Amino acid sequence: MATLSDIGVAAGLNILSAFIFFVAFAILRLQPFNDRVYFPKWYLKGLRTDPVHGGAFVRKFVNLDWRSYLRFLNWMPAALRMPELELIDHAGLDSVVYLRIYLVGLKIFVPIAFLAWAVLVPVNATSTGLESAGLDNITSSDIDKLSISNVHSTSERFWAHILVAYAFTFWTCYILLKEYEKVASMRLQFLAAEKRRPDQFTVLVRNIPPDPDESVSELVEHFFLVNHPDNYLSHQVVYNANKLAKLVKKKKKLQNWLVYYQNKVERTSERPQIKTGFLGLCGNKVDAIDHHNTEIDKLSKEIALERDNVSNDPKSIMPAAFVSFKTRWGAAVCAQTQQTRNPTMWLTEWAPEPRDIYWSNLAIPYVSLTVRRLIMAVAFFFLTFFFMIPIAIVQGLASIDGIQKRAPWLNPLIEIPFIKSFIQGFLPGIALKLFLIFLPTILMIMSKFEGFGSISSLERRAASRYYLFNFVNIFLGNILTGTAFEQLDSFIHQAANEYPITIGTAIPLKASFFITYIMVDGWAGIAAEVLMLKPLIIYHLKNFFLVKTEKDREEAMDPGSIGFNTGEPRIQLYFLLGLVYASVTPTVLPFIIVFFGLAYVVFRHQIINVYNQEYESGAAFWPDVHFRVIIALIVSQIVLMGLLTTKKAASSTPFLIVLPVLTIWFHIYCKGRFEPAFVRYPLQVCQLIILMANNPTSHVCDLDFPSCIYASTTFILPNL
Amino acid sequence: MATLSDIGVAAGLNILSAFIFFVAFAILRLQPFNDRVYFPKWYLKGLRTDPVHGGAFVRKFVNLDWRSYLRFLNWMPAALRMPELELIDHAGLDSVVYLRIYLVGLKIFVPIAFLAWAVLVPVNATSTGLESAGLDNITSSDIDKLSISNVHSTSERFWAHILVAYAFTFWTCYILLKEYEKVASMRLQFLAAEKRRPDQFTVLVRNIPPDPDESVSELVEHFFLVNHPDNYLSHQVVYNANKLAKLVKKKKKLQNWLVYYQNKVERTSERPQIKTGFLGLCGNKVDAIDHHNTEIDKLSKEIALERDNVSNDPKSIMPAAFVSFKTRWGAAVCAQTQQTRNPTMWLTEWAPEPRDIYWSNLAIPYVSLTVRRLIMAVAFFFLTFFFMIPIAIVQGLASIDGIQKRAPWLNPLIEIPFIKSFIQGFLPGIALKLFLIFLPTILMIMSKFEGFGSISSLERRAASRYYLFNFVNIFLGNILTGTAFEQLDSFIHQAANEYPITIGTAIPLKASFFITYIMVDGWAGIAAEVLMLKPLIIYHLKNFFLVKTEKDREEAMDPGSIGFNTGEPRIQLYFLLGLVYASVTPTVLPFIIVFFGLAYVVFRHQIINVYNQEYESGAAFWPDVHFRVIIALIVSQIVLMGLLTTKKAASSTPFLIVLPVLTIWFHIYCKGRFEPAFVRYPLQVCQLIILMANNPTSHVCDLDFPSCIYASTTFILPNL
Repeated sequence: MATLSDIGVAAGLNILSAFIFFVAFAILRLQPFNDRVYFPKWYLKGLRTDPVHGGAFVRKFVNLDWRSYLRFLNWMPAALRMPELELIDHAGLDSVVYLRIYLVGLKIFVPIAFLAWAVLVPVNATSTGLESAGLDNITSSDIDKLSISNVHSTSERFWAHILVAYAFTFWTCYILLKEYEKVASMRLQFLAAEKRRPDQFTVLVRNIPPDPDESVSELVEHFFLVNHPDNYLSHQVVYNANKLAKLVKKKKKLQNWLVYYQNKVERTSERPQIKTGFLGLCGNKVDAIDHHNTEIDKLSKEIALERDNVSNDPKSIMPAAFVSFKTRWGAAVCAQTQQTRNPTMWLTEWAPEPRDIYWSNLAIPYVSLTVRRLIMAVAFFFLTFFFMIPIAIVQGLASIDGIQKRAPWLNPLIEIPFIKSFIQGFLPGIALKLFLIFLPTILMIMSKFEGFGSISSLERRAASRYYLFNFVNIFLGNILTGTAFEQLDSFIHQAANEYPITIGTAIPLKASFFITYIMVDGWAGIAAEVLMLKPLIIYHLKNFFLVKTEKDREEAMDPGSIGFNTGEPRIQLYFLLGLVYASVTPTVLPFIIVFFGLAYVVFRHQIINVYNQEYESGAAFWPDVHFRVIIALIVSQIVLMGLLTTKKAASSTPFLIVLPVLTIWFHIYCKGRFEPAFVRYPLQVCQLIILMANNPTSHVCDLDFPSCIYASTTFILPNL
Repeated sequence: MATLSDIGVAAGLNILSAFIFFVAFAILRLQPFNDRVYFPKWYLKGLRTDPVHGGAFVRKFVNLDWRSYLRFLNWMPAALRMPELELIDHAGLDSVVYLRIYLVGLKIFVPIAFLAWAVLVPVNATSTGLESAGLDNITSSDIDKLSISNVHSTSERFWAHILVAYAFTFWTCYILLKEYEKVASMRLQFLAAEKRRPDQFTVLVRNIPPDPDESVSELVEHFFLVNHPDNYLSHQVVYNANKLAKLVKKKKKLQNWLVYYQNKVERTSERPQIKTGFLGLCGNKVDAIDHHNTEIDKLSKEIALERDNVSNDPKSIMPAAFVSFKTRWGAAVCAQTQQTRNPTMWLTEWAPEPRDIYWSNLAIPYVSLTVRRLIMAVAFFFLTFFFMIPIAIVQGLASIDGIQKRAPWLNPLIEIPFIKSFIQGFLPGIALKLFLIFLPTILMIMSKFEGFGSISSLERRAASRYYLFNFVNIFLGNILTGTAFEQLDSFIHQAANEYPITIGTAIPLKASFFITYIMVDGWAGIAAEVLMLKPLIIYHLKNFFLVKTEKDREEAMDPGSIGFNTGEPRIQLYFLLGLVYASVTPTVLPFIIVFFGLAYVVFRHQIINVYNQEYESGAAFWPDVHFRVIIALIVSQIVLMGLLTTKKAASSTPFLIVLPVLTIWFHIYCKGRFEPAFVRYPLQVCQLIILMANNPTSHVCDLDFPSCIYASTTFILPNL
């Protein structure tokens, strides 16, 4: 077990590395040639252009103004300065509410930490449980002296822990309630305030049954003319336009080359020549500009032809459509009601934003969907509990013995000491690390296979899976011994009342490990986030090798996005650790508070300056966030119960068992009270918008407004 | 353990008692003076009147036609003769679908029994596991020789059981799927075919927020004029009219007395006199008819006054209203959508039928509802697991010792041998029996406290609670030893993988007990149902002591109803026993088939001739029925898994673990596919009704049609 000084050294190292990251960031971001890496959001909004084109050549790349280096941390207050409303305008509601998760962390843990240090730390520290129980060969660390381990068994002091656990639960629930209320009203305000977004008038209809007599388009029109005669406006069938999309992409590429050659002509006033053969290495020499012009013309014709093909060929029409209504009210009614007797046909839901749609999943029939869910549920179970098996096999293959057996001709190479130590010390770790890096991608692929229709729901699904994986393999995996499957097996062979005891006993022992984990992942890791090392390198590589035109430079920017599917489960791990350790080892809390504070500043800066959110779901993820904090709370209560049982304070169990019951009830209450606002769209809001407009026709949108937007996107984007 | 001959004797006794019940029924039902007990449904429909008033005096009471006694079982084919469609007309969809539960039992268990007897019984009977394991002091019964217990441990024969378990699962799921499909389509047809029922145009609005400036009625009108301008028709606020209801009841009673005295005058041509004082025993003598006439006039005036009071006094207006729409479509839209930003205000749902409404619960606010659910969940937990504690206390008090201690002056009485043996042998049992008799009532009271708004949902809730109670206390309670709480305790202290083993080991041992249980409860109990002993006695008592007028006689009839809250959980117990024992002890199956067949005939007869269903929910209970059969299926699979583990056929577990996964998936599929039809009301059906009518105005119901029905009921019925 680590002593306080061990922790101190680790903290020093991590603070140092975080500091280095910040200094590096401060230097790099001031260099003009990195401008597009650190401020892409402003470029995409058209509010920033490339730095001074004139002036000294060096100035274009390096910032020589030494004064700007002195204020190297001033991006932090700058990040905090933008007010929330402006931030919603700037980056959307999703990003703002995502930031609120960190704020919730601060709101929950700062008062909890004060209470824990004011009450629990003195109670624990003045006990002598460890000393009196101490055997000679076990030296208890200083952290343990401040933790619940130091209290004597059957001591009356445990009442302090129970009372404080009540206080923690009520405080957390209070904050969660307030926050749910706030986010729900923000969401409704956001939806109501937005100016006539097409998706507010549009409903996505899936599983349109095939009809031998009518085309899908006619069928949709007739169905909605009959069932929603007063509100139906128009519809847009979804096409499978893979080939068309390919052609459009090709044309774009050619146009880019054309621009490049035209720029060249301007600069060198010499018409460039290219070879038409393979990779421009062989074939006839032709004038580059003329050649590209003719190619583009040819492609344009092909595209027009293919476009006709797609819209006329019944095979390329998918059994899904976007149906637009004259009023928000009509769309709300259609999205929230069941259309036919067969509830698996004509499924309606609010249309996702055009950029949020995941096109390939729109045409999956209902039965196939349920089968896919079953397969993925089984697959995820195996992924969570048995992922170590393939990795162990790979590690076996990549070991010295494995290589010597399978590839004896490599022996001379392996004998080299450097390579040998590399294989021994590094390769096995890499297999696991690679798996963990690709895990979010694997989970996203699994969600895609399950058939969700929008990117936001894909990410939400992947996030909840990732959370489960983290819970089993990081939280439980580090508390208990053995692989996840061995744990599962031991849990099955254990009585239900032993679970809390098993976990409860191990929890205090692992406090110093998790403190280190928080510092590495939560301090240095967050600081590294701001440096954006990967996009920085890739941007400069692209800039050096690939960029030919201004448009290429624009495309070389990789602003990225929040990455809800990886980011949120990560935060949730800190909620879990914080709540679990709050009443057990309060020493953990300050480290978690530093994480939440630091991450809030860093991500606020990133959202303002870097990330470009791909879609806007209107904070539809908040119920998930809320639910996972509740789970963390219940886990913490169960752990405390187990811990007190091992301390033979068994009479406390009835007092503690009330807490999870109340917490579950609180969750059910919140679910009924707020969740509908995140799933449905209240009719009153629709009508209010109409009334506020004060203009009898303003609620009827331009006749072609929504459907034409969906039309253009459906035509060009599918299956990209 | 019971031998085959023991079972034979028990079967003989139960068949005999069932036979006696049937004979008694055959004799009693033919007597004219029992006519209103055995055919009340026809009286209520106005299709049957009291038997021949003329003729011999004896003929009026006793049937002297000896030939009619010979065909004493001919009510059975008669009960089966009425076709299903006619039965829906006659008794409603609820009753018909309730009968289908018994049919499902037959459809599931007849093929399963054939397969089990063709495959499993030979496999078990030709084994010698019991003989070779048999110790001298254990004599295994004949039933055990036919059960899985007779197969050697680690035998290859268990593959037969595994294969057959697959067949059982697939067959059960197939039948359930077909039945769900059928019931769903019956429900939709029923709803669509019905002529303009008021509840199809009406939505119940609860949790109307208080408004300082407007009355509830104005508020409702404005809200719906704004939010549903095209469809809103009218509304009816719910009044708290307890006092009014009391007055109306009093007036009815007086009117009945008036009729009685008028009849008396006609018969005796002598004006009767009564005393106005207490119970007609003291006070002034007055003319009875005049006195009642003046009293009724006085009451009528009071009622008119109170009616004005109720409709004007804001305190008696509840925050709930029935809102009627011009079209079914408008009502469907309103019932299925969220009305306001705050999802706990203006809650809308389809209005229950007027007679299905449970008035007192209409005004409970949302927060109170969630608190009530929490309290009842906790209370039900204690009721299920700790109900033995108060009963044990009562039993302690009611024992000889207890009485001697607390009431020594009773000693001489207790010393009498007859009373002593009564106290010793009977009183303790009565305490438990009384509790079990009142349990459904207790559960109904709990559901009422939870705040459901319709009688049908109250009964559904009570049924699911009763099922849980039966599962824990009858199924598990008889398999395992000790009280429910001791079992709970031992389960908590047991590893999860031990559960199936604990249950699995005990299951075959209890087969003969459950066979006896089935015969007592399922054979003789069902036969007793047809005799209607309690209503028979009460009717004749009332007839003798209370009946004064024809109207009184009508009210003395107690047709009763199906009693979904007690009947359905009882059937489900048989599904559970049947599925669990199908692959373990196939001997149980024939007994269960006899139960389902007998019960089907008896209840079909009762539904045709006796029961008068209080409400019509359109088979809204089917999802519950389906779900519980699925649970029984999963329990049976788990039990088989545990059993095979104890038989050391552990390699079978992976094959068996697939079954619950598939069954759960099947349930999720069915839920998505069919359940919406039982909760929502598809818009297409609404439109179809309009189109079929071929008359542009026919879908607009008479302006006052729905609301006036609700108005009259609300005014007279609340809180009765």
